[in-house]
Amino acid sequence: MRGLVLEEAGPRVAEDLPLPRAEGEAVIRLDLGGICATDLELCRGYMGFRGVLGHEWVGTVEQAPEPSWIGRRVVGEINAACGSCPTCRAGRPTHCPHRTVLGIQGRDGAFAERLRLPVENLHAVPEGVPDDAAVFVEPLAAACRILEQVHVKPGDRVVVLGLGRLGQLCARVLALTGAQVSGVARSAASRALLPPSVEAVPAAEALDLPLADVVVDCTGSPEGLRLAGARVRPGGTLVLKTTVHLPEPLQPTPWVIDEITVIGSRCGPFAPALRLLAGGLVDPRPLITARYPLAQGMQALAAAAAPGALKVLLEP
Amino acid sequence: MRGLVLEEAGPRVAEDLPLPRAEGEAVIRLDLGGICATDLELCRGYMGFRGVLGHEWVGTVEQAPEPSWIGRRVVGEINAACGSCPTCRAGRPTHCPHRTVLGIQGRDGAFAERLRLPVENLHAVPEGVPDDAAVFVEPLAAACRILEQVHVKPGDRVVVLGLGRLGQLCARVLALTGAQVSGVARSAASRALLPPSVEAVPAAEALDLPLADVVVDCTGSPEGLRLAGARVRPGGTLVLKTTVHLPEPLQPTPWVIDEITVIGSRCGPFAPALRLLAGGLVDPRPLITARYPLAQGMQALAAAAAPGALKVLLEP
Repeated sequence: MRGLVLEEAGPRVAEDLPLPRAEGEAVIRLDLGGICATDLELCRGYMGFRGVLGHEWVGTVEQAPEPSWIGRRVVGEINAACGSCPTCRAGRPTHCPHRTVLGIQGRDGAFAERLRLPVENLHAVPEGVPDDAAVFVEPLAAACRILEQVHVKPGDRVVVLGLGRLGQLCARVLALTGAQVSGVARSAASRALLPPSVEAVPAAEALDLPLADVVVDCTGSPEGLRLAGARVRPGGTLVLKTTVHLPEPLQPTPWVIDEITVIGSRCGPFAPALRLLAGGLVDPRPLITARYPLAQGMQALAAAAAPGALKVLLEP
Repeated sequence: MRGLVLEEAGPRVAEDLPLPRAEGEAVIRLDLGGICATDLELCRGYMGFRGVLGHEWVGTVEQAPEPSWIGRRVVGEINAACGSCPTCRAGRPTHCPHRTVLGIQGRDGAFAERLRLPVENLHAVPEGVPDDAAVFVEPLAAACRILEQVHVKPGDRVVVLGLGRLGQLCARVLALTGAQVSGVARSAASRALLPPSVEAVPAAEALDLPLADVVVDCTGSPEGLRLAGARVRPGGTLVLKTTVHLPEPLQPTPWVIDEITVIGSRCGPFAPALRLLAGGLVDPRPLITARYPLAQGMQALAAAAAPGALKVLLEP
């Protein structure tokens, strides 16, 4: 089968990949994939991953140990946990030390004609949610994760720094709380994509914003993280959604004096994300920048890496 | 009056300080003071403070706008907030940007024959609590602050790193939750002071402990902070009780991947601390290393700075 695979020499479109064997899991036909910043980082060597790329997708079940799944349109959680270690038994399977992660760690991903995942990971996509929206469930779930970790209150002031793929979704989800959400970005095009529920603020004006109860850093840059830390009120919360390698020391002393809570935030719950899409509460489709057939996977990766690109989709 | 005062040239015992004037606040006669690590840092230039040192104390009210306070034995919260700014009105007076802080910022402290504080800051000391215990209310409140910020559960595993003055109190308070608390220190003498509710662990064996749900860094050292970060389980919480200047970059990437919550923690609530003392649930008196008369304040500061010293008290 055809697939976008990451090898020692870099990514390439392969035409001769073996079809995945079920081995107790579900085999799914890809309907649509979405390229994420993590895919681009994997191509630069992050995590040392080798295999089929891709962890944002929607597809149709072809084989499954439980026949009721066959023919259903699904999305799937990307962490495949062991289910039996102390971490899994404590209800934290996304942190299972033995986990594999779809297209990221020890498990082929979704950018191929077929993919494989345990049925426990699957979520049926409601009929009213088109593929173009369903393909955003994984990053939308990551945005919902913030609300699992932080009690954002309707009276809060929230700042989302960085309006790339993930920042756009975080801003939309956080605005659903009724909080006063400001989305900060250098790019006027990114700001223009914000819905009316989010105030658009140019990066140059971020220092004029009042200190916020919650600041979410989605910039992936050291300057962004520094700015984020400077915009949290004493006693407030700084949420780290992106990973950054810092060239200089980050000093935690102000966090102690100002009693800042810093929260690392990663993968989130799929069911709420699907409800937000099905209920029309979040529409991620304006974030689609381009579509490519899987055969043009290399062009799709380049388009996703281009400045200003948001979501680039892959069609099988 | 006599007092231990920090001047440009350093700390000294002065005999000719003016008595504080009430000016709408309470004037209190010092019964006992306690030296804190912050006092030692102030003497090294931290915060640029000038004035009478001291913020851990117990005393007797001599003058007050409300006569019912006169003659009462009291302790007092150290942050004097403006009460009218948005931060105060939002219920966060300890973060009031206009606040003065007893013996730390813009306000003479307690190591003198008389001190002054707003009556709103005072708490009457219950009869059964001796001065030797009451003088620990401020740091004990700082230990209680952790439980205001983090929901420590009875089944949790907690590690307190550093068993100096504050670490000893944090370990005792956290053990009251029923959690499995390990106190880690290099010094055998510090470990020997731990009550039976806390497991004593030599620093060299800290890496053998299972990853903890909550790790509290009370070391004040970069190595301690690094070790603390390495002992938190994915999804767990790292509480920063001490400030540290780091010589090398602290990289937050693992916090994102492992979804660690990092919480800066400072001043805490006095009423619960008094209840713990009155109820006999925490006995801080084994932490008393030495007592000096106020006239020997310089010797007292030296004793508090000596390796292995815990709480050094000052008697007027």
